[in-house]
Amino acid sequence: MSNCAAFPDAGGIRPIKYNDGVLSLIDQRLLPTEEVWLKYTDYQAVAEAIRSMVVRGAPAIGVTAAYGALFGARAIETEDYAEFVKEFDQVCEVLGATRPTAVNLFWALDRMKSLVQANPEQPVGNLKIALEYEAMAINEEDIRINMNMGRHGAALLPEKVRILTHCNAGALATGGYGTALGVIRAAVAAGKEVAVFADETRPFLQGSRLTAWELMRDNIQTVLICDNMAGYLMSKGAIDAVIVGADRIAANGDVANKIGTYTVAILAKEHNIPFYVAAPTSTIDLQLTDGSQIPIEERDTREVTHIGEQQLAPTDIAVFNPAFDVTPARLISAIITEHGVAQGNYTEQLAAYVQQSR
Amino acid sequence: MSNCAAFPDAGGIRPIKYNDGVLSLIDQRLLPTEEVWLKYTDYQAVAEAIRSMVVRGAPAIGVTAAYGALFGARAIETEDYAEFVKEFDQVCEVLGATRPTAVNLFWALDRMKSLVQANPEQPVGNLKIALEYEAMAINEEDIRINMNMGRHGAALLPEKVRILTHCNAGALATGGYGTALGVIRAAVAAGKEVAVFADETRPFLQGSRLTAWELMRDNIQTVLICDNMAGYLMSKGAIDAVIVGADRIAANGDVANKIGTYTVAILAKEHNIPFYVAAPTSTIDLQLTDGSQIPIEERDTREVTHIGEQQLAPTDIAVFNPAFDVTPARLISAIITEHGVAQGNYTEQLAAYVQQSR
Repeated sequence: MSNCAAFPDAGGIRPIKYNDGVLSLIDQRLLPTEEVWLKYTDYQAVAEAIRSMVVRGAPAIGVTAAYGALFGARAIETEDYAEFVKEFDQVCEVLGATRPTAVNLFWALDRMKSLVQANPEQPVGNLKIALEYEAMAINEEDIRINMNMGRHGAALLPEKVRILTHCNAGALATGGYGTALGVIRAAVAAGKEVAVFADETRPFLQGSRLTAWELMRDNIQTVLICDNMAGYLMSKGAIDAVIVGADRIAANGDVANKIGTYTVAILAKEHNIPFYVAAPTSTIDLQLTDGSQIPIEERDTREVTHIGEQQLAPTDIAVFNPAFDVTPARLISAIITEHGVAQGNYTEQLAAYVQQSR
Repeated sequence: MSNCAAFPDAGGIRPIKYNDGVLSLIDQRLLPTEEVWLKYTDYQAVAEAIRSMVVRGAPAIGVTAAYGALFGARAIETEDYAEFVKEFDQVCEVLGATRPTAVNLFWALDRMKSLVQANPEQPVGNLKIALEYEAMAINEEDIRINMNMGRHGAALLPEKVRILTHCNAGALATGGYGTALGVIRAAVAAGKEVAVFADETRPFLQGSRLTAWELMRDNIQTVLICDNMAGYLMSKGAIDAVIVGADRIAANGDVANKIGTYTVAILAKEHNIPFYVAAPTSTIDLQLTDGSQIPIEERDTREVTHIGEQQLAPTDIAVFNPAFDVTPARLISAIITEHGVAQGNYTEQLAAYVQQSR
């Protein structure tokens, strides 16, 4: 089955490709200096790709996990439904244990599991075919969702705007087009004059390696800065709006996103700059009443002490390396979803948007 | 003439050594993985060492420039006083053009020039000897000043304290002992239980390469973080105080310091954490009424796009790389000097402290 190309090229790379039963991921660890595509047909290898950040970004992790679940399902040899469900749950458990913070991972796996659970009368062979369609649907829907989100978000921006973004909430973080960068692409497409300041985003450098790379590819004016320079730019009146993505949003609108997002939100508040979050409803976790319940992943200290083989810090220095932080809803001017823009009463609006997606 | 070792080893390396007419600087670009000492007897080479950041940190730049001026004076061949003054002014101009923000550079050069100007009756040979004593005095005084500053600053800290620091305001940034890290050393020496969180401080990584290195050498408990993690730590109640150094302080207490300091100050205010600046009076520039008049150096974009030979960002990406920012006095809980602690009315107190140093 070939990749369904439902959407014209709206700008932005598609980092996750599925053709003839093979998943291809651009290795995001090697960008921007090397463009290497890795191929997958095994769910354990897909799990490792998520864990090691070949692919990252909450929506992209969700899409990739769906294909991983498909590969896991395909490898199950039984024709017995109950046995299939049992083994498929184990596959999903492995995929779900890769990274804790982004909820899209669990959302995508739940969607694959629900399909299986809802069709006990189907032969296992049919379930495998249906799972393939489902994974591809998750992938394609993600792009459509991002384009809708872009349209809603672009309407919030003035005709001429200098936007700060943190991390990469771009095409590379999704099925394509991007969440925060999708809003930026939509604003550019709408004829707005947009300049982007991209935080480099230590330690993994998603800003310098990924955001700068994909915005340059689309000829969107981009200036790279270190994370600690954003406050200075704001104090000089050089930033009109902040847009970031999200890894998990609690029911009350608290947002977990890449480490450093909270600091940017505080800076934006101090300088009276609107702070926008762009995320699909699959990022909203209504099970959690507030952000304090969101698990925060801590990653290997080597991400901080080394870049590649180069040592940046003394041997054996203690390091704290949280990968995410939580921005409280009170610091967020609006949450942009595919169904519309939540402002003010997040609890009610986010619940309504999630309901619309069901 | 040998290096005058007026002070016992109070902790902290001495990064600037002067022995038998030769200046030795530890190459701070190679730390923490290599300890290489470079030797200087030529003022142009000293200027280049300051420009290329072999040595950095406002007080250390001042001390180094004083030795540079000495070498320049020694190379002047005339015995005529007026001609000597003219050529010496040119030497000081070259040294003064190396880096714009740290005022200690100009302060140290002015002190060397004042000595020459005040002694027109002296033979040039005597002036050269006096300049050597003056450079060594500036060096030694800097350490004594830091130890006094440490004593004043340590008194502000509770018995058990977790301190965030940004950049390197340590022994390596001074003649020895350090300003912000001098306060930390003094608190440890006074028996306080101190844990330090060190911002890595992009792009030059003074925190991971220098602060972590010198605090580990002194067995002071240190945890390295990326700059964008400080807000998260504060939100978790993990920071009790912030201490940083300064590159230039305006008459009203506005402080220019390493890029990112302003952001840390905003974060500290948001979390009700005291934000202290430790700096000698030689860092205070009463000529400037406020921080908007402090020139902010912009450095090469390669500092952001590369680490060593490794490329971190797309080729030809636009980069903004300001090396400093200005923290307004209203965000500063106290300015710790060698004469005491200024709190509240900075204009009056800073002027009084500068007067005391004359």
